[in-house]
Amino acid sequence: MGIPTKDLISLSPLSREDIEELFNLADEMKKIIERPVKKVPTLRGKVIANLFFEPSTRTRTSFELAGKYLGADVINFSSSGSSISKGETLLDTVKNILAMGPDLIVMRHSSSGAPHFVAERVEVPVVNAGDGINEHPTQGLLDLYTIRNYKGGLDGLKITIMGDISHSRVARSDIIGLSKFDTEITLFGPRTVMFYDPSPYRVKIARTLEEAVKDADVVMMLRIQRERQSALLIPSIREYSKFYGLSHWKLSLLKEDAIIMHPGPVNQGVELTPEVVYGNRSVIFNQVTNGVAIRMAILYTLLSGEGS
Amino acid sequence: MGIPTKDLISLSPLSREDIEELFNLADEMKKIIERPVKKVPTLRGKVIANLFFEPSTRTRTSFELAGKYLGADVINFSSSGSSISKGETLLDTVKNILAMGPDLIVMRHSSSGAPHFVAERVEVPVVNAGDGINEHPTQGLLDLYTIRNYKGGLDGLKITIMGDISHSRVARSDIIGLSKFDTEITLFGPRTVMFYDPSPYRVKIARTLEEAVKDADVVMMLRIQRERQSALLIPSIREYSKFYGLSHWKLSLLKEDAIIMHPGPVNQGVELTPEVVYGNRSVIFNQVTNGVAIRMAILYTLLSGEGS
Amino acid sequence: MGIPTKDLISLSPLSREDIEELFNLADEMKKIIERPVKKVPTLRGKVIANLFFEPSTRTRTSFELAGKYLGADVINFSSSGSSISKGETLLDTVKNILAMGPDLIVMRHSSSGAPHFVAERVEVPVVNAGDGINEHPTQGLLDLYTIRNYKGGLDGLKITIMGDISHSRVARSDIIGLSKFDTEITLFGPRTVMFYDPSPYRVKIARTLEEAVKDADVVMMLRIQRERQSALLIPSIREYSKFYGLSHWKLSLLKEDAIIMHPGPVNQGVELTPEVVYGNRSVIFNQVTNGVAIRMAILYTLLSGEGS
Repeated sequence: MGIPTKDLISLSPLSREDIEELFNLADEMKKIIERPVKKVPTLRGKVIANLFFEPSTRTRTSFELAGKYLGADVINFSSSGSSISKGETLLDTVKNILAMGPDLIVMRHSSSGAPHFVAERVEVPVVNAGDGINEHPTQGLLDLYTIRNYKGGLDGLKITIMGDISHSRVARSDIIGLSKFDTEITLFGPRTVMFYDPSPYRVKIARTLEEAVKDADVVMMLRIQRERQSALLIPSIREYSKFYGLSHWKLSLLKEDAIIMHPGPVNQGVELTPEVVYGNRSVIFNQVTNGVAIRMAILYTLLSGEGS
Repeated sequence: MGIPTKDLISLSPLSREDIEELFNLADEMKKIIERPVKKVPTLRGKVIANLFFEPSTRTRTSFELAGKYLGADVINFSSSGSSISKGETLLDTVKNILAMGPDLIVMRHSSSGAPHFVAERVEVPVVNAGDGINEHPTQGLLDLYTIRNYKGGLDGLKITIMGDISHSRVARSDIIGLSKFDTEITLFGPRTVMFYDPSPYRVKIARTLEEAVKDADVVMMLRIQRERQSALLIPSIREYSKFYGLSHWKLSLLKEDAIIMHPGPVNQGVELTPEVVYGNRSVIFNQVTNGVAIRMAILYTLLSGEGS
Repeated sequence: MGIPTKDLISLSPLSREDIEELFNLADEMKKIIERPVKKVPTLRGKVIANLFFEPSTRTRTSFELAGKYLGADVINFSSSGSSISKGETLLDTVKNILAMGPDLIVMRHSSSGAPHFVAERVEVPVVNAGDGINEHPTQGLLDLYTIRNYKGGLDGLKITIMGDISHSRVARSDIIGLSKFDTEITLFGPRTVMFYDPSPYRVKIARTLEEAVKDADVVMMLRIQRERQSALLIPSIREYSKFYGLSHWKLSLLKEDAIIMHPGPVNQGVELTPEVVYGNRSVIFNQVTNGVAIRMAILYTLLSGEGS
């Protein structure tokens, strides 16, 4: 089926086979994006509501384009200027929007669990586009999809995730997804922001950057979110960059064919220097393209049962 | 014809027959909203400009979806970041937008009379989406349409409107519309925000909440607009809620088959408690769906003369 | 060819013949705007990204409608709420958006040269929608197109540009464009904001308003940008208006058939009084309509090579 539930809130319920099926579908979707006429009528007459209660450029636009390429109409909401500031509850806002007819909700919220709360109370599919420090399942899928495309598969790979693990919804979805395959996951970052309880997942904690990256096939850098809690838990930006960032000269510590990933937006000069972002090991912009393809596959999977 | 004038600024010029014709058209529109493919080409190649000089989520989106379901293109403007802040007059802003080709303007403005002022000076139809404390005719129509759908018609009904009557453009349009039918209208609210001069309309003023609701077939609650003038004229929110709000236990004062309406967004715990909002007498979310259908009927009526 | 380069950053590389070809194409586009069904499938399946790092209502909407009339999808970005505030570089933001598939970028930025910088680093066409105090080539083209439509051509005309010349990207593009034809350009404005070095272009500097306008076939007024540097360099608004604005009674100084232009938004009562804006010599709203037609011609020219 690709997605075994009505919604996509977490990667947990997806099996390895579900994920592989989404990847195969995404391969087809990528062909649409690469065509001169990027438009198919598959989801014509469907309406996707983008509810972003936290600002975002790339994720909102990625879903918007994914919907439009498939022929759907997409309407955007953001919290600013909306009814939220007038005293309405989250559920009321969502129910009001749904009463106007949308077929699927894409939702980002600063509170962990908010999309789950909503999904349980509405009939249409809800796609979690990032909730607090909990999960970001479509980012997890596009990350796995990108690795699979570069490495031919996921089994047998050594993958290192570096940065503020404990506040990263991207890291959480990546770890959940990667754990469904035969991968070896290594984490590295300041101790204050390390995964609080790695026990449910098979992860290793590296002591040094060298140890973290030397055998890695994939190095996934996380974004230091200056606007979040992590600011209090990490050393100065300069110190963070020195010990936990990847600069050009540190690349020699990596395997020749290791790829470097980042969910964006990059704090240039902090997690990565510009030479690394635009270097030949970086697959950062491919992640963005793959994100549109994966989201097309998700929208198609969740909506295609209805229209026929 | 449904709408006897070029524009829809007020419900006053509409006859009872006009309103009934819009209702019949809205019945057809609802069928489109309920179809798996919510898209007809009726207004293809038409452009609707949503000019919102006051923030709004639901009304703007309702018009946007109404236009898109009928195949039109919809462009959104809000006052923030626009030319208004650069010293341009309202009429210049509108004339500039019209020079780009839109076929119809939907306009919300904090000044009573602004859409009327514009409508007299432009050739395309103007739909008032709420002007100051004056009127909100599309809300009035969707309220009447909702009552008609639940009660089979409007004649003979007793309708109570509760809250800040004097600052409510919703109340004004509802009263104008309901007065065209054989209805009995009762108002209830703090004296300081009561309809200043009820004489032109056949309304009764209730003294107590019990008197207001006991015979009502329909109870329409108004929103306390904390951001407006009413804040100065009502008692504390807690006191307002106690005397003028509907909580679960007060529902026993209502007739068994009375329906409860609210134009939204609801201040939960002030006008209505959550049990009432989500209770079986509430038709609040149906109002939202009916709003899209009514707006489709309005857009179709005002635009269909041109394309053929 | 219409546009000899991949991008449209400046009017400099366009020849007189290029410009005339765009005008002929715009004539065809105007017919589409005037049709009851304003929609052709020419650019169906193409995506235009409107990147506005500076607020704008009319230019953004003009491009949005130009794209939609031609059947393209248009996605809008503004800097507020975007990744820019999260520490991402301009180039990263643009590369991220491009990785999602857009076929063309329309870009406004407060820094002179920003669109040029981006255009050199990306493969898709970039259209400059105004960069700092440098250029606004699509405004220049629509201004020339409007003059040509009213005067039958550009050769032999006397054109006066009045206002804050030195900070006006509109003036710069107008002067570059007009210089490609046999025109006589006169500038007038406060000395402190006069063109710093007119030598590369054949322009005259008038000493008095009377001298500036008396022989002019076209009087182009510029906007006093109160939000920019010019505020420090001009006398008070009242004094500016008195000496450099056009009020109704000053119109007698102009030739009978002179037309009055303004790029908008007009500071009413400063550069122009309302009688002049809405008077019979004003072609200000025609400029706006022509702007959509010219932008359709530009989008078509830059994109039509790919899809076929």
